Amino acid sequence: MSIKIITVSRQFGSGGRSIAKQLADKLGFDYYDKEIIENVALETGFSKEYIERKGEEAPGKTVFSYGFESQTIPGIMNGMTTHDYLWTAQRKIICNIADSGNPCVIVGRSSDYILRDRDDVLNVFIHADMPFRTDRIVRLYGESEKKPEKRLMDKDKKRAANHKHFTDLQWGYAPNYDMSLNSGRIGIDKCVEILYEVVKNS
Amino acid sequence: MSIKIITVSRQFGSGGRSIAKQLADKLGFDYYDKEIIENVALETGFSKEYIERKGEEAPGKTVFSYGFESQTIPGIMNGMTTHDYLWTAQRKIICNIADSGNPCVIVGRSSDYILRDRDDVLNVFIHADMPFRTDRIVRLYGESEKKPEKRLMDKDKKRAANHKHFTDLQWGYAPNYDMSLNSGRIGIDKCVEILYEVVKNS
Repeated sequence: MSIKIITVSRQFGSGGRSIAKQLADKLGFDYYDKEIIENVALETGFSKEYIERKGEEAPGKTVFSYGFESQTIPGIMNGMTTHDYLWTAQRKIICNIADSGNPCVIVGRSSDYILRDRDDVLNVFIHADMPFRTDRIVRLYGESEKKPEKRLMDKDKKRAANHKHFTDLQWGYAPNYDMSLNSGRIGIDKCVEILYEVVKNS
Repeated sequence: MSIKIITVSRQFGSGGRSIAKQLADKLGFDYYDKEIIENVALETGFSKEYIERKGEEAPGKTVFSYGFESQTIPGIMNGMTTHDYLWTAQRKIICNIADSGNPCVIVGRSSDYILRDRDDVLNVFIHADMPFRTDRIVRLYGESEKKPEKRLMDKDKKRAANHKHFTDLQWGYAPNYDMSLNSGRIGIDKCVEILYEVVKNS
């Protein structure tokens, strides 16, 4: 197997996280998702919730984040904005995971871009049509005040803006990944199987 | 098999056409590529070369096409521009192929968009990194005055602009397809195998 690391980027509600987890289990690879946030929290002292929220924002683009953009903790953040500081801490953690040499699956957090210079990484993007995703998020996370379509669009928009801000790449543009799969059309189990075969035969 | 039609869009030099042909052979499906151009030529009277060129232009965007944009053949083209007339003829041919009920693979020509209302279609996008593609086009089509990188970029740009013009969709954006594969990374044979399995098990 020449592929040791799989990064999984995903549209909200597409089942990308489930695919990543099942794939890691099937391959016997380590799995990193919330674990990265936990490590960033340990490293920086910010709460997991705060880091998670910041990680899905477009820096300087929201009314709420705007006021904080220029705030730094002197002597610790080296004059960086909170977004840049958290990105840097997260990047370091992802690089350390990759450098450890243990095969793994990493969900999101622009890990595709962060690990772009390695040749043992397979970058995957999981997407699905709106009805598949709305049905899924209502089933998994329940109803909320916002319509599910609006929740999906807001989340995807933020992920795309955050990715663009730090990588200058378009989130979801096929040539930026090795494989992009429509989980609603192909099925979650079949996506896992396809990815498993590609990695096993690499 | 619920999938009866596979559309294959592809970056120039990615081997998308080879994948489409091998997949059609393996499935025993009909294969449509240049055949569509030949049918458009029969239907409209324009030469194959002219149709092929027009099909990869962004209407109204090139210096050469600009002058012809408003030219129509009275009584035949119903006041349409050449681009629109050819698009309409091509659309009709693609719809007829699909409606014939014979399983098939169709290469390019925005057939993914044209057949968007059918539920028996799998839309595929094939892409690859620049070195894989430059190497491939030089090997297949030989050298030319233009550098291979420039040839690739020009061709892709025109395909994207033509697709955007007629469909208002972004060419190469993963969520517009069911599967997008990096043929350079995964390998042409493996791409065929993955697609074959997905169609056979559908």
